[in-house]
Amino acid sequence: MITLHTWTTPNGRKPVIMMEELGEPYRIAPVDITKGEQFQPAFLQLSPNNKIPALVDDTADGGPLTLFESGAILTYLADKHGKLLASAGPARWQALQWLHWQIGGLGPMLGQLGFFSKQDDALGKQHFREEAVRLLAVLDKQLAASPYLAGGEYTIADIAAYTWTVAAHEKLRAVLGEELDSKSHVQAWLERVGARPAVRKGMAWQVAGA
Amino acid sequence: MITLHTWTTPNGRKPVIMMEELGEPYRIAPVDITKGEQFQPAFLQLSPNNKIPALVDDTADGGPLTLFESGAILTYLADKHGKLLASAGPARWQALQWLHWQIGGLGPMLGQLGFFSKQDDALGKQHFREEAVRLLAVLDKQLAASPYLAGGEYTIADIAAYTWTVAAHEKLRAVLGEELDSKSHVQAWLERVGARPAVRKGMAWQVAGA
Ligand SMILES: N[C@@H](CCC(=O)N[C@@H](CS)C(=O)NCC(=O)O)C(=O)O
Ligand SMILES: N[C@@H](CCC(=O)N[C@@H](CS)C(=O)NCC(=O)O)C(=O)O
Repeated sequence: MITLHTWTTPNGRKPVIMMEELGEPYRIAPVDITKGEQFQPAFLQLSPNNKIPALVDDTADGGPLTLFESGAILTYLADKHGKLLASAGPARWQALQWLHWQIGGLGPMLGQLGFFSKQDDALGKQHFREEAVRLLAVLDKQLAASPYLAGGEYTIADIAAYTWTVAAHEKLRAVLGEELDSKSHVQAWLERVGARPAVRKGMAWQVAGA
Repeated sequence: MITLHTWTTPNGRKPVIMMEELGEPYRIAPVDITKGEQFQPAFLQLSPNNKIPALVDDTADGGPLTLFESGAILTYLADKHGKLLASAGPARWQALQWLHWQIGGLGPMLGQLGFFSKQDDALGKQHFREEAVRLLAVLDKQLAASPYLAGGEYTIADIAAYTWTVAAHEKLRAVLGEELDSKSHVQAWLERVGARPAVRKGMAWQVAGA
């Protein structure tokens, strides 16, 4: 059985969406990062970087596996089940390059824009706003060329970029404004991806009582 | 033949070190990012995110392959040649999780610390210094438990984290100070990795005339 140690954030929803896409059984062990639970020793054993998500698969090949970093988790689950990531060839590498682009670019830069947008720091706000605007333009251009990030097929790269792009709409509208609505290819992709039952379920997931 | 479109930066040196580790033929097409060459249309065709490194492999399985994002490039090269990344099992996923940790954490946070350390912005400097200090502690703790990031074997995760940790020593000493030298496990790992002929060659690589 797979256990996701996670929370209702952009990175935290990715593996939830993935498990719903796979239709495989899983359980969720909530880690409330608003209460600092990511610093509890038992969680740090799984995720020494004190971040969600982490995965434990006690039926992995070669013995129980624990894994942190959402990009590694998505890749692991895709390869394990042979879904949402080609097993070889150009399609595989195109998906992995866009996955890395989200992990190293879109995610951290939107995250920092979220931080600085709440601070009294004009330079920080401007710096990360520029980065976010640039990255949204890269995304829109790619989605003008193909319906999904890595081409004709929906992959784990779409899951990764989707949760962050939704978060930008929900939390950064005040600072990004027109930059969001003006990206017509991004908007069409958000609808396309957001219409998937697994994505709806993963995005709607809430922790009772939290 | 493999062509690396790259430059003499932490991300840019990673695939150079990797090709030296593999001992396979390659050529380098320098992209001088200090002169804005990453914005030239021919380069944007390879790397729409206007960042180095990018790889072109005209002998890839399934036709010529172009790839950007250093983490995807390292993974591709490791899998193609069956080196520095286990093909399956826990060892593979441990290496990929630490690779993602560098791509999504260590790299962007040290990069932003570099940016803000040159700005008149106390909050930005403090914020990214705290992140860098936290990440260096995570790195040191992991390297206290095993000689390499993913365990007993040197992998692509070490290449990725090495170039950035060296950059922190070279460029961020003034702002990180004691936080670097006090990390004895990081220091021992830097020596261990830095002693490899391929790493020395990749780190010494310069562009004539630049
Ligand atoms: N690169 C990591 C980033 C994970 C991350 O930033 N997680 C956030 C929530 S979205 C977190 O756990 N923050 C708590 C903390 O940093 O203390 C991944 O993709 O898994
Ligand atoms: N996540 C990317 C980051 C690449 C990156 O930041 N490259 C820098 C040099 S180290 C660059 O090309 N900067 C030029 C620019 O952003 O315009 C990777 O790992 O390849």
